[in-house]
Amino acid sequence: MQFNEFYNERTGLTVGIKKVLFSESTPYQKVEVLETDTWGNMMTIDGMVMLSEKDEFVYHEMIAHPAMFAHPEPKRVLIIGGGDGGTAREVMRHPAVTHVDMVEIDEAVVRASKQFLPEVGAFDDPRLHVHYEDGIRFVEQVTDPYDVIIIDGSDPVGPAVALFSESFYRNCRKALSGQGVLTAQTESPWVGSYHPAIRNLFSLLKETFEVSEMYLAFIPLYPAGMWSLAFTSRGIHPHDPDVSERVEKGTMRMGSALRYYNRDIHHAAFALPGFVRDILE
Amino acid sequence: MQFNEFYNERTGLTVGIKKVLFSESTPYQKVEVLETDTWGNMMTIDGMVMLSEKDEFVYHEMIAHPAMFAHPEPKRVLIIGGGDGGTAREVMRHPAVTHVDMVEIDEAVVRASKQFLPEVGAFDDPRLHVHYEDGIRFVEQVTDPYDVIIIDGSDPVGPAVALFSESFYRNCRKALSGQGVLTAQTESPWVGSYHPAIRNLFSLLKETFEVSEMYLAFIPLYPAGMWSLAFTSRGIHPHDPDVSERVEKGTMRMGSALRYYNRDIHHAAFALPGFVRDILE
Repeated sequence: MQFNEFYNERTGLTVGIKKVLFSESTPYQKVEVLETDTWGNMMTIDGMVMLSEKDEFVYHEMIAHPAMFAHPEPKRVLIIGGGDGGTAREVMRHPAVTHVDMVEIDEAVVRASKQFLPEVGAFDDPRLHVHYEDGIRFVEQVTDPYDVIIIDGSDPVGPAVALFSESFYRNCRKALSGQGVLTAQTESPWVGSYHPAIRNLFSLLKETFEVSEMYLAFIPLYPAGMWSLAFTSRGIHPHDPDVSERVEKGTMRMGSALRYYNRDIHHAAFALPGFVRDILE
Repeated sequence: MQFNEFYNERTGLTVGIKKVLFSESTPYQKVEVLETDTWGNMMTIDGMVMLSEKDEFVYHEMIAHPAMFAHPEPKRVLIIGGGDGGTAREVMRHPAVTHVDMVEIDEAVVRASKQFLPEVGAFDDPRLHVHYEDGIRFVEQVTDPYDVIIIDGSDPVGPAVALFSESFYRNCRKALSGQGVLTAQTESPWVGSYHPAIRNLFSLLKETFEVSEMYLAFIPLYPAGMWSLAFTSRGIHPHDPDVSERVEKGTMRMGSALRYYNRDIHHAAFALPGFVRDILE
């Protein structure tokens, strides 16, 4: 049995599958966990790979640490989506963290992850509070602001469309504390059909936040193996000297828990190939 | 019709194919050119993707420019392999170049490229001299040294195995001029079966050259979308201030001819994720 995810007509990923471990059509989407040949268990949503046990460290380290190290003292963190728990796990490696709200619209994602991806999520950490709610509405109603917000949603189809909208990001900005930092996943630069969505998103981020930068990560099971993310903030820049200092010290302390992110990667990830810059113009 | 290249049991790339344009079993390998859905024409050797018209710019810019800009005046360049002509094209964007020797063992690669990938190779440039010879032997017999050598061979199976050997790199070093720089393709860090070959190669490069560094590029049609390359030299380091200055000026001059490589990428490509560093240790 083979899983296919084509991102460009008939081009894309093929993965050998041993067994379907979980398959449920929820009110929001189809959630599956597949046992693969060589990537451990792999979760898909509506036929798109979300993570595998073997490669999830890249995505989760790269969506969490650039923001978490940028903030001088990230106590309160909000994660929109992220139901597999991997982003929360990386967030909670930072000792400053006292409270994490994770707002996952689909409880089936959390249930499937706890059962079939048990090493991914840090669901037992008492700092983590899981809410099965619509992240769009949750952000509208924030009263106690967050130091870091991470938008760990799926692709801009289905329930995640509004995660690419202007009003959502305006509400996110309001929900951030004074030195707040926000990161989000923003699709693969190699998928032409997403270029308009990426361009619009970065254009509205630029209008909404004082700092907004794209950065990149190598994710083998995502379309074309290249993934883009957004770093935005109310003033902190990823290359600020005190950010570099925190990254340097913090990555040393975390040691081998980090398998992708490090000091060099923190800065290098913001270098964009010409064809990627062109998408943003 | 679909093309598959699996790099990890049954995981890998699938590409939609309209037509087989060229297929020849040569004394060395099977060379094919396939017309794809969305990547233009694509060349494969022994079932492994070498390049497509749509993504070849990444590989060719990234194997050529880090070396070409590192050398203060790269007049004489040797390319081992590179029969599609794309590396030579990028090399010859540098105005200092007076003479390029391209040593391709298999004339079928050049013939198929000229016919079906006509935009890739710069075969009409009078500075380019194509030799249908074994690159291993060619390097043994060099008398007039080269400023830059680029090892643009295929994977370490079949005729390219010796391109990963110690004696080959010792001969390359002898064939370099005093400030000589050499780059080589060194496989995907996500393919576990290549880890011993990558580790051995970088260990022997470290013994053979004064400077040896790995760098990375996002190549969508190569295994896992992540490719590693080696930068080695008789002393010049890619981050030397005068190299940065040449990159800055030269990339400005080349303008939109460069679609991946730029000043930021030149430096950022050398940042390695932890799991990649681990391969080298």
